[in-house]
Amino acid sequence: MELQELIASIRPLDAAAVAAAREHQDRLTKPRGSLGLLEDISVQLAGLAGRTPAPIPEPAAVAVFVGDHGVHAQGVTPWPQEVTAQMVANFLGGGAVVNAVAGRAGAEVVVVDVGMAAPAPEGVRAAKVRGGTADMTVEPAMTRAEAEAAIAVGVATARDLIAAGHRCLLTGDMGIANTTASAALVATFTGAPAEQATGHGTGIDEATFARKVDVVARALALHRPDPADPIGALAAVGGLEHAAIAGFLLAAAAARIPVVLDGVIACSAALAAQALAPDVVAALIAGHESVEPGATLALAKLGLQPVLRMGMRLGEGSGAALALPVVQTAAAVLAEVATFDGAGVTDKHA
Amino acid sequence: MELQELIASIRPLDAAAVAAAREHQDRLTKPRGSLGLLEDISVQLAGLAGRTPAPIPEPAAVAVFVGDHGVHAQGVTPWPQEVTAQMVANFLGGGAVVNAVAGRAGAEVVVVDVGMAAPAPEGVRAAKVRGGTADMTVEPAMTRAEAEAAIAVGVATARDLIAAGHRCLLTGDMGIANTTASAALVATFTGAPAEQATGHGTGIDEATFARKVDVVARALALHRPDPADPIGALAAVGGLEHAAIAGFLLAAAAARIPVVLDGVIACSAALAAQALAPDVVAALIAGHESVEPGATLALAKLGLQPVLRMGMRLGEGSGAALALPVVQTAAAVLAEVATFDGAGVTDKHA
Repeated sequence: MELQELIASIRPLDAAAVAAAREHQDRLTKPRGSLGLLEDISVQLAGLAGRTPAPIPEPAAVAVFVGDHGVHAQGVTPWPQEVTAQMVANFLGGGAVVNAVAGRAGAEVVVVDVGMAAPAPEGVRAAKVRGGTADMTVEPAMTRAEAEAAIAVGVATARDLIAAGHRCLLTGDMGIANTTASAALVATFTGAPAEQATGHGTGIDEATFARKVDVVARALALHRPDPADPIGALAAVGGLEHAAIAGFLLAAAAARIPVVLDGVIACSAALAAQALAPDVVAALIAGHESVEPGATLALAKLGLQPVLRMGMRLGEGSGAALALPVVQTAAAVLAEVATFDGAGVTDKHA
Repeated sequence: MELQELIASIRPLDAAAVAAAREHQDRLTKPRGSLGLLEDISVQLAGLAGRTPAPIPEPAAVAVFVGDHGVHAQGVTPWPQEVTAQMVANFLGGGAVVNAVAGRAGAEVVVVDVGMAAPAPEGVRAAKVRGGTADMTVEPAMTRAEAEAAIAVGVATARDLIAAGHRCLLTGDMGIANTTASAALVATFTGAPAEQATGHGTGIDEATFARKVDVVARALALHRPDPADPIGALAAVGGLEHAAIAGFLLAAAAARIPVVLDGVIACSAALAAQALAPDVVAALIAGHESVEPGATLALAKLGLQPVLRMGMRLGEGSGAALALPVVQTAAAVLAEVATFDGAGVTDKHA
């Protein structure tokens, strides 16, 4: 099966390039370690590229995967489901936050219909697997075959963007109620109880929050998703955009292209990708730490330090795009800064 | 006196523009508050500019103020003093970290000699007040007249950069041993004891750290700097670059131009500026939270939330320049994102 081949092709960071990058960082005209996480990112990029310094990861593209959620019927959000399609129109018109943020960062925005309930308008990459998931409190969100098809949409999207010349990919997402599916996935892969994995999403009151926690708990009790069967877990309690993002991450990692993760939707999808291929994390950079508690749990499980912690919880890829200049600058520092020897700067006394 | 006029001209944020910006943020096509600190920055920029949305703060320039420190003789750092001049040459050659980071962010780097021990090379803005401070454990670091002259260097630098068209200023600094003076200033203005205000700077061992704490404590005991007399405090225990940065902040605030602060040197200088003119903070954005404990103490006293927390402790303006794209993006979001009405997106149920 093609997915198994893709998974088998994912390798960890190149140890020699990692060591060379760390050593080169220590020769740059600055106190050793004084750039903190920026140094770590430059080392990761070198290990991913297999050479030191790594090329600056540009140009970049944000793929916004769109899906609807049958669990919306359970009253987990005050936003009507038609907002998913309205926001897609907003992306195409350039009026959404992700457009403004990606525009400043010089990143292209690509919108992918993997599971909108409404017909996809022109300008969207048409790859609808089904028109939204089923209500996971009643039945599996989708079939295993649909989950595999959605993963394949993400794989194809990543491959096409890379073929078009992009050297950094960013995750984006849109789908009213998708933090509910994210919470169920985080609970599945981290073992956290529903009340810890669930957050207030785009802003819900306490009554809605209590209902949302109960919805997640009921879905988990109904399906008992197995973290050792990530495709089965995506099918049971995930979203079509979650499955697509998982595939997107796997394809990027196989191609040794870094991916900047956005918030809790991306992080929960990354847990599924990690369960399929543990070395996928070599390609992942956490753009920010969402205020959603599931994001924090997921980042810990992924072993990732977020670039930004700005109290954001929007999605769309906004946090990933905001972090992009920092990621690119990390590579630029390793590539461009002079060494002590080269610049005639005296190193500190031993 | 001209400084008094400058101070008197500094005003708080424009309340009407702040309210309009906050109201406009709440009409944008996103959940209210979902951009966290990014929303707050956009509101601050509007309040500073006096209009909503504020213009995007660009182009930007980093002013790297350079000074040497007599307290270097006390063995507070393993770096020889000549590194100050070597790094100035590195800045001019484009090989330092601040060059790489500012280059990616599209910011100009200007190097200002306010107190180098060595002669300033060509390409540096020549404004030497004296060739480094005196050893503050023995005598005041400088005279009050010298502190005032250094403040005036910062004022003139800011004014010249603004006159040249810059609409965002960033602080930078270079001066071996300048975290020692920073610690003494932080202790003065926050009341923290020397052992809490002092950090490991560019990387010192525990014996050197103990000596550094003792040096700061002895200087404070000798001069008893008065936080109500900020110029006297700068003269007693500050650095020439600290005084210049304080003037730079005051002039930017008076001109309603935002300033992105770098690390502990800038934050400690900002405490002096705040003591002179409390409303100066209206113009200040904390680029990052340095790992130096004095930076954390200073940010709390200034009431500023840092944009980045990446474990950095380099100085030069590197952290400010790394945060610049985030600051500019905050303004772009408020200016460019569509409203619910404008984009035909349904707002959430009340």
